[in-house]
Amino acid sequence: MKLDELAGKCGEWLLGTGPESDIVISSRVRLARNLAEFPFIRKANDSERTQISQLVHAKMDSIKSWPDLLYVDIQSLDEVDRQFLVERQLMSREMAEAKGDRAVAIDPNERFSIMVNEEDHLRLQVMCSGLDLQTAWERIDKLDDELGEKLTYAFHDTLGFLTACPTNVGTGMRVSVMMHLPALVITREIEKVFRSLQKINVAVRGLYGEGSQFMGDFYQISNQITLGRTEAELVTTVNEVVPRIIEYERRAREFLVNESEQDLHDDVSRAYGILCTAKKISSEETLHYLSKVRMGVNLGLIRSIEIETINKLFVQTQPAHLQKLRGQHLSVADRNIERASYLQSHLGPNSKSDADN
Amino acid sequence: MKLDELAGKCGEWLLGTGPESDIVISSRVRLARNLAEFPFIRKANDSERTQISQLVHAKMDSIKSWPDLLYVDIQSLDEVDRQFLVERQLMSREMAEAKGDRAVAIDPNERFSIMVNEEDHLRLQVMCSGLDLQTAWERIDKLDDELGEKLTYAFHDTLGFLTACPTNVGTGMRVSVMMHLPALVITREIEKVFRSLQKINVAVRGLYGEGSQFMGDFYQISNQITLGRTEAELVTTVNEVVPRIIEYERRAREFLVNESEQDLHDDVSRAYGILCTAKKISSEETLHYLSKVRMGVNLGLIRSIEIETINKLFVQTQPAHLQKLRGQHLSVADRNIERASYLQSHLGPNSKSDADN
Repeated sequence: MKLDELAGKCGEWLLGTGPESDIVISSRVRLARNLAEFPFIRKANDSERTQISQLVHAKMDSIKSWPDLLYVDIQSLDEVDRQFLVERQLMSREMAEAKGDRAVAIDPNERFSIMVNEEDHLRLQVMCSGLDLQTAWERIDKLDDELGEKLTYAFHDTLGFLTACPTNVGTGMRVSVMMHLPALVITREIEKVFRSLQKINVAVRGLYGEGSQFMGDFYQISNQITLGRTEAELVTTVNEVVPRIIEYERRAREFLVNESEQDLHDDVSRAYGILCTAKKISSEETLHYLSKVRMGVNLGLIRSIEIETINKLFVQTQPAHLQKLRGQHLSVADRNIERASYLQSHLGPNSKSDADN
Repeated sequence: MKLDELAGKCGEWLLGTGPESDIVISSRVRLARNLAEFPFIRKANDSERTQISQLVHAKMDSIKSWPDLLYVDIQSLDEVDRQFLVERQLMSREMAEAKGDRAVAIDPNERFSIMVNEEDHLRLQVMCSGLDLQTAWERIDKLDDELGEKLTYAFHDTLGFLTACPTNVGTGMRVSVMMHLPALVITREIEKVFRSLQKINVAVRGLYGEGSQFMGDFYQISNQITLGRTEAELVTTVNEVVPRIIEYERRAREFLVNESEQDLHDDVSRAYGILCTAKKISSEETLHYLSKVRMGVNLGLIRSIEIETINKLFVQTQPAHLQKLRGQHLSVADRNIERASYLQSHLGPNSKSDADN
């Protein structure tokens, strides 16, 4: 499989089929791993980075249960392709902006991806649709075992897995859940929820990390601390807190429906109308209106669209995706026009969404 | 014909069929007349007002070329019906809010209406679609002759027709044209146009008189002075200035298309989207968006709607019209909901507009 083929496809985690997927977009587990025989990335020279990448690539290719793995050399990519992989949640923004020999290995169904030579030698991640950390954890545990058989991880009997940043030492695990919380934003309760999460060491970030809280009401909820905790404990911590946030969001939605259904219906319906008719539209505006439409569909206020279509549009209307789908570089102004056109062909009465699915 | 039957119908002047009707909605001529044997309204007592109304009613009924004339006693109407006639441009706001015996006589095709006991004993008006003051003038001249045969007008050999307000003495005529000038508003040239009109004694007012300039970019252009001018001169004054304003508006539209067609297309298309999807919407917002859509249709940026449909919606989405059409009194909040529903059933892919026409 080639990178270009990914653009028109859709990762399994975006299908909107998992548990609680009206509020939880996806569950993600990532493991940080380092190779015992190499220095950490920050201390590694160019030659060592290349050796790591080549070794890891060869070992991955030898794992029979990982067929058709796409091993992407980031250095050889242009800026649009790098941004594309970030928008796709297959690698970090830091990875896109870094220098030197580095790669990302991608499962064709996007069930997992593995960054090579990011902050650690290896960053494995598994994504599942909806709230399903157990499946994500089981899958990544298996991937970790399979890869661990081929490579020698840096491991300390007392400390556990060794990582470049001390905050990851131990399990090297981060457990996170991407939540869609528009009603808590409208009712202004979101800050209160976040403050109580901080007290129990649960971190909250925007769609693409810190400072992006205005991006379509999406929030990543994840464990803050890893050292001294078992993998099961980390999964449990996040698994315990997420249902409570879901409950808050549901109550806020019920409140909005009960107190001001007409306002809410008007708001989501106009958002849909704008997405269906704008002749140019920015990414931010698109996220903003898609977020409203997504809540509207989940509340039964809009019936003509599938959640899967909206989930896909969140990703496919982003700058690099648009350029990949159109097969050409586009200026910001041209992207805004293409984005409007793309939205119109996938929403509304004459949309392509059925054909695409 | 009954008043209720008017609500679902559409006056000829709204059909959008007249000359220059992309920019000129309608042409209107009105004549002020008073009866020689009665004091002016401001000096008349209740009994005299009743006598005037009864006399005029009887005489009008005896004119054979005025069949099916609807003679409406304003005192017997509730507030919604009064407002309905104002929205319909069949009588003035002052007439609706006044007290005492008064009436309006309405031609079934709404080609003309005659207010009885407004500021003057009689106020005749004729409306035509587009820029067609000559037809309006010929029609009202004929109506005036027909009515003048039955009644004795207060007329002075030197001054001409006598009127309650000295500014109307002479011909008693006001010539006005309702123009749609959205591009001059967007390009901020409208104020300049207005200042030059003031210099040549041409008045500019909003849709419903002074201070309503934000109502959907509609402006009434009319003669300021009547004394000392003949009817033909008054028609000529307005007839000469209107084509110049049309030319300015057309140039402003061309400028917008040439300089920022994408912005303009986006703006009018979103306006259409909001009208098609809002679940509640105020009169002001409706006028604002309908105005953009009207320009969009005239510029070929929106192709699925007829100008006639939009012209009708301007009138039919107003508060009293909505209530008449729904057959019940509605609160402001309920009207906003009904208005959105009405717009949706007349715009967009599944609209009723074809069936209605």
